[in-house]
Amino acid sequence: MLHLFMTYDFDEIIDRDGTNSVTYEGWRSFLFANEQDLQIPYANHELISLWVADMAFSSPPPVLDAVRARLDRKILGYSKIFDPHYGKVLKDWFLEHYSWDIDTDELVSAPGIVTALNRLVPLLTEPEDQILITTPSYAPFKRAGDQCGRGVVFSPLQENEGKYEMNFADLRQKIENPVNRIRVFILCHPHNPTGRVWTTQELKELGQLCLDNDVWIISDEVHSDLLREGQSHTPMAALFPHSDRIITCSAPSKSFNLAGNMLSHIFIKNTTMRAEWKRLFSDYHSPLSIAATQGAYEHGAEWLRQLNRYLDANLQFLKDFLTEHLPEARYQIPEATYLAWVDLSAYLPKRKDTDRWAVFFAQKAGVLIEGQEDFVANAEGYIRINIACPKATLHTALIRMAEALNN
Amino acid sequence: MLHLFMTYDFDEIIDRDGTNSVTYEGWRSFLFANEQDLQIPYANHELISLWVADMAFSSPPPVLDAVRARLDRKILGYSKIFDPHYGKVLKDWFLEHYSWDIDTDELVSAPGIVTALNRLVPLLTEPEDQILITTPSYAPFKRAGDQCGRGVVFSPLQENEGKYEMNFADLRQKIENPVNRIRVFILCHPHNPTGRVWTTQELKELGQLCLDNDVWIISDEVHSDLLREGQSHTPMAALFPHSDRIITCSAPSKSFNLAGNMLSHIFIKNTTMRAEWKRLFSDYHSPLSIAATQGAYEHGAEWLRQLNRYLDANLQFLKDFLTEHLPEARYQIPEATYLAWVDLSAYLPKRKDTDRWAVFFAQKAGVLIEGQEDFVANAEGYIRINIACPKATLHTALIRMAEALNN
Repeated sequence: MLHLFMTYDFDEIIDRDGTNSVTYEGWRSFLFANEQDLQIPYANHELISLWVADMAFSSPPPVLDAVRARLDRKILGYSKIFDPHYGKVLKDWFLEHYSWDIDTDELVSAPGIVTALNRLVPLLTEPEDQILITTPSYAPFKRAGDQCGRGVVFSPLQENEGKYEMNFADLRQKIENPVNRIRVFILCHPHNPTGRVWTTQELKELGQLCLDNDVWIISDEVHSDLLREGQSHTPMAALFPHSDRIITCSAPSKSFNLAGNMLSHIFIKNTTMRAEWKRLFSDYHSPLSIAATQGAYEHGAEWLRQLNRYLDANLQFLKDFLTEHLPEARYQIPEATYLAWVDLSAYLPKRKDTDRWAVFFAQKAGVLIEGQEDFVANAEGYIRINIACPKATLHTALIRMAEALNN
Repeated sequence: MLHLFMTYDFDEIIDRDGTNSVTYEGWRSFLFANEQDLQIPYANHELISLWVADMAFSSPPPVLDAVRARLDRKILGYSKIFDPHYGKVLKDWFLEHYSWDIDTDELVSAPGIVTALNRLVPLLTEPEDQILITTPSYAPFKRAGDQCGRGVVFSPLQENEGKYEMNFADLRQKIENPVNRIRVFILCHPHNPTGRVWTTQELKELGQLCLDNDVWIISDEVHSDLLREGQSHTPMAALFPHSDRIITCSAPSKSFNLAGNMLSHIFIKNTTMRAEWKRLFSDYHSPLSIAATQGAYEHGAEWLRQLNRYLDANLQFLKDFLTEHLPEARYQIPEATYLAWVDLSAYLPKRKDTDRWAVFFAQKAGVLIEGQEDFVANAEGYIRINIACPKATLHTALIRMAEALNN
């Protein structure tokens, strides 16, 4: 209960050297897989990492404490979620934060949402079927189709003064055309990389379109806790309580900086599909990961509240900085996530010696970001900046990026 | 370094209630999946768990300390093994303990050896191919074939006064018969459940037979550290340094009671197969699991030495107990593992109201063990007793089991 009254420190600069961090030590093989010899004139500790979606903040102290408490139980043997209090904690969280009364019987676990997508797409489709995603897209959505040989159809989001919207005419045409054999729509809600929190109206229209055409919806709601002041999240499944064709993917990984926790929650209402999942997959989990997750949802709300206000400020800081120093950048504060989706098209001629922003900023500014290549399509000229870092770090990175662009 | 001089306490009774332990809370769905309504006249805390292969001892204190140290680094984001010292620690361990100079370039990671088997069998075979295992067998070996639709051929081990041996004539006949299309042999070395440490002579004969017939060997060596006094372990791959068709599976999970750690080491020498694995699978791991593993191999040797002497004593205690109280049980102290493979055939008529030892001992003694059903074939009348628990616990369990059998 002490945690209720704590003020958490998001300004702390935390050294990640030697912690086996992907963002700190794995960037080359992810961002520059095809350019392994790329020369970057910065030492590793000089680079500023604003790419992969984990945060440069401490995981919540109450979560670390929950793991320590589990370590004090001494045995780290085969583990699955058995504690009945775990389901209760989860149920309370969903009810309080999204007004969604989950049925914990629908819950299965997975080591990650990407793993879950890779399992679900072949389960829900036949070899000749296709899946549908909107673009720009989190790249693993496309790979979930590619990996099992299913075709992937894109519906580009439409951008209007920085706000992205679904193109329902296009979605309808693609879903209703039987030649396409669309059987699964992967929804990203809230949306990565654009930061949209889809409205109830949008979700209802999309959901009805899919369900009317026997299209399963896999709704990746991993960013649902990372909301800007005034925003709220409504799970897609909550809007269609009578349908069993909406699968919800959730996890504490983004909200509580637990991307290394390897434990996600998949809600499969359809009994046949859930039985098939359980027959094929029966994951063990680290008892420490189970403890971390339960600790997060039980004791992490106040930390999350403070985090979101810090992210609000960082996103506003970015907006002010761009207005002043890079006025031709197009950017709206996202409704959710800690990811800024910034259109640098106007600066494309500045991008010398490379056709990729990721290479440009790594070489010229020592800043690691993801560019259009990482988001499938409909992303030309854009970069994604992960602003979940101390403001001082963000400021330094932006100064270096602006200098690189303005010189 | 302090750990070098510690005496570890293997007599401590550790409460596992509420720790999400499979052995403590998950036994019903594993042991009695088809008998969910089975009445067992014991409360959960009264049952003694000698079934699934983790230990009732604390994970090594230096391992818990290594995890605590990683927690102090605060961020639990996306993680993979990057620390170059990790490979050095592993290399030193294999060299010192098995005189095997590993090439860390061959190393890939997996969340577990069973997961690795499930991935490797379809990679190494065509749909019409079959795999070969010896029986009795760890059940997931068979499932690795079943799950991807490959046929599974059994070669029964031959028991001679409690010592199990390969039937080379049978193996040769099955491997050389082209109709069988055997493409993979899954070796269990040391062997679960019989406890054999295969001799260099046996391994060479088996290896040559497989390699001469283009049969891949997947060698599960997870029990290689759990050796009786005087035994030593030689990795199969070390005997055939010029072959790239032997895949070695290793993990700290058994040795250091880290079955919940979800991090195994798979050595794939063949460059094509290793590239294919890396293309298809790229596991993240918990940074805490990486820390635990490194801590175990770096600081766990003395704990392991003391553990093995404690296991020696428990296995001898079991032998003495059986000789005195259940003289018709047939049992030899295994050369490795903490698993006792006990032939209770002589007592089969005592097994009233059930055809399964697991049910009999659960109901009549409140002791959970695995029986023949859990080991595929060639196991009639046998039970497997996990003796990795405080001697007092083992003693109580044995008294209750003997009473059930002798009454």
